[in-house]
Amino acid sequence: MIYITRKTEFCASHRLFNPDFSHEKNEAVFGLCNNPNGHGHNYTLEVTVRGQVDPQTGMVLDLKVLKQLINREVIEKVDHKNLNVDVGFLLGLIPTAENIALKIWEILEPKIEYGQLHEVKLFESDKNFVVYRGEALERVN
Amino acid sequence: MIYITRKTEFCASHRLFNPDFSHEKNEAVFGLCNNPNGHGHNYTLEVTVRGQVDPQTGMVLDLKVLKQLINREVIEKVDHKNLNVDVGFLLGLIPTAENIALKIWEILEPKIEYGQLHEVKLFESDKNFVVYRGEALERVN
Amino acid sequence: MIYITRKTEFCASHRLFNPDFSHEKNEAVFGLCNNPNGHGHNYTLEVTVRGQVDPQTGMVLDLKVLKQLINREVIEKVDHKNLNVDVGFLLGLIPTAENIALKIWEILEPKIEYGQLHEVKLFESDKNFVVYRGEALERVN
Amino acid sequence: MIYITRKTEFCASHRLFNPDFSHEKNEAVFGLCNNPNGHGHNYTLEVTVRGQVDPQTGMVLDLKVLKQLINREVIEKVDHKNLNVDVGFLLGLIPTAENIALKIWEILEPKIEYGQLHEVKLFESDKNFVVYRGEALERVN
Amino acid sequence: MIYITRKTEFCASHRLFNPDFSHEKNEAVFGLCNNPNGHGHNYTLEVTVRGQVDPQTGMVLDLKVLKQLINREVIEKVDHKNLNVDVGFLLGLIPTAENIALKIWEILEPKIEYGQLHEVKLFESDKNFVVYRGEALERVN
Amino acid sequence: MIYITRKTEFCASHRLFNPDFSHEKNEAVFGLCNNPNGHGHNYTLEVTVRGQVDPQTGMVLDLKVLKQLINREVIEKVDHKNLNVDVGFLLGLIPTAENIALKIWEILEPKIEYGQLHEVKLFESDKNFVVYRGEALERVN
Repeated sequence: MIYITRKTEFCASHRLFNPDFSHEKNEAVFGLCNNPNGHGHNYTLEVTVRGQVDPQTGMVLDLKVLKQLINREVIEKVDHKNLNVDVGFLLGLIPTAENIALKIWEILEPKIEYGQLHEVKLFESDKNFVVYRGEALERVN
Repeated sequence: MIYITRKTEFCASHRLFNPDFSHEKNEAVFGLCNNPNGHGHNYTLEVTVRGQVDPQTGMVLDLKVLKQLINREVIEKVDHKNLNVDVGFLLGLIPTAENIALKIWEILEPKIEYGQLHEVKLFESDKNFVVYRGEALERVN
Repeated sequence: MIYITRKTEFCASHRLFNPDFSHEKNEAVFGLCNNPNGHGHNYTLEVTVRGQVDPQTGMVLDLKVLKQLINREVIEKVDHKNLNVDVGFLLGLIPTAENIALKIWEILEPKIEYGQLHEVKLFESDKNFVVYRGEALERVN
Repeated sequence: MIYITRKTEFCASHRLFNPDFSHEKNEAVFGLCNNPNGHGHNYTLEVTVRGQVDPQTGMVLDLKVLKQLINREVIEKVDHKNLNVDVGFLLGLIPTAENIALKIWEILEPKIEYGQLHEVKLFESDKNFVVYRGEALERVN
Repeated sequence: MIYITRKTEFCASHRLFNPDFSHEKNEAVFGLCNNPNGHGHNYTLEVTVRGQVDPQTGMVLDLKVLKQLINREVIEKVDHKNLNVDVGFLLGLIPTAENIALKIWEILEPKIEYGQLHEVKLFESDKNFVVYRGEALERVN
Repeated sequence: MIYITRKTEFCASHRLFNPDFSHEKNEAVFGLCNNPNGHGHNYTLEVTVRGQVDPQTGMVLDLKVLKQLINREVIEKVDHKNLNVDVGFLLGLIPTAENIALKIWEILEPKIEYGQLHEVKLFESDKNFVVYRGEALERVN
């Protein structure tokens, strides 16, 4: 069992707020992130797959295929977008790093053909990042 | 003469487009950056001041003072903001890295009390950055 | 279950030696780190909390609160300090990265209000770092 | 139980291909990495050992000893080498990051005198890296 | 006048030696870099162009165009290659970072359509890098 | 003319204060850096030499020689030291980044055998760094 990671980047804007909260509560909970006109980040996404090494290739999987999958299913949908309104899989969710990571897991997990998805790690900045490993996903829906 | 640099970060959203251009021309010139709902970045700002070392302190200037100046005049105005609509000193400008750097120079240059502003370096991402050293500023107005 | 990490930095000096060892043994065990006048580092601290995502906020916890907790309980006590003599929670301990990480865990673990402390990661330099996850803490006292 | 990591770097060249594959299959599987004259990387190696903190030293192990072990057993054998032909422990293997990490584990694991080897992490680039923790090693031989 | 930089990466192998030197002299001059089977690096290339900001676009040039130029003229020719034998513009030269940077300058300088090439910066590793700004190019032929 | 840079690291402790200042003035000028028991940093030093490329070697100079010079003349004297009391070339100076950079220039400049010293860049942290290029050195004595 070996773990292989592919790192990618995208940039996007978002605003954190809950439409069911009052303005005061949104300010208290989300602070600067509640700016009505939004703000943005360069996100870094690390996707880790675990599996056996194929002795014919010395590889767990073809990184080109993993890279194409991540680009097609995630990066093309979020890069240079507004995460509140432009991204189908985030509609109706508050686009926190936590929710984005959970949704990326949901999207990629059934599509990994060799090995199994092990971890989605999403950096909102150099200082803040989240990790999701597929535990207890039902809670967030 | 010695050069001292202070690095800071901020995150913001923006959209690149010229209201005088047709939709097609905006697409051709700005591409993904013309997404109507915007996108965003973690910007890194490096401000360099040059000056003589004061033999009493061994320092060109008090970095705390420079840090406070950068925070008050720049970071508080752009961090967690939309650069198209929330930032007074960028109104009416296309918020490219070039224009942001030029405006930061204009703001900081007269306010450096010890030494002289030497360079404003602005990273829009790890891969793209601009440098302005005060040459030919009149052209951009 | 999701894991959220906050990264912070501090700078401090220390000297590694055991007063119960002879000078020769301290030299053999601690080498350059035994310099009597000390040396120092820019430390990087990553604190990871795990928990459920609150569907009302899309967040595990309020990062501002975590940041304030880390600053108040750890950073303000160690930043720009001498770890051998200035820091109450390290008195009587050899201030290795291992011992500092263990003590930071002890301090933060009971104070995390949402979720649970998962990991304390302390970089003494880019090349050396330690991780503690709360296993077998009693051994080090 | 605490985890301590030492990071090292080396640079090497390699070519990925399986002599049992046709030219076409090698192209399809390995793509650019199958260039007959090879290519190369700056590799980053992180070796993590887990163990108890010795209350006499405040350390899990002597990092100087770990550093010497990694240098003697790994770095001196791979740094500034061609991984296909110059490195005894890789002969007969396709020098993928996966296989290199597995072999480094095999070499270091019995030689760690204090604590136990926990993880070998090998970055082929900033974007691609693998992790091996000693699970199911028999499969790769 | 503003300076805009695009950063790109490539990986390649090389061997440093002068066929006119004896084996002993090659060893003395190039050391580990003279390994007959070569070694390799992840190179980072930063290309800086200087120019006026176009008030219609807020940009010095179209970064997409610069990126395509760098990819077509440089990256596609050196990435995943052996710099001693696979790269036309390096044939007959010792592929040191110095010579590679000089040749990249020669290739790109006449092809920059907006602004002027200001600097080619080439990192052979995180620890070693060279900068060329077009001064005294005739010496190296 | 090409510029070649070698990057090195060292860790050290220091205290910033002027013995001619009152306690209050030292607090006002140096703030946290005036902690009587000191603090410390991981410093990063970049030394840049400029020169012609030797067509026989493709190099400006032998980086091994430059590395040995920097290690012997600078790193061995400051690494794991207290910059206030352990380092001969800093005695009597306030060990600010500015003064350290100036002294490193003074030490290295006459000892560069091929090419000329162009720049000494010293990072006290990721956020603060100074550059010295040999201009107006007499002022700091």
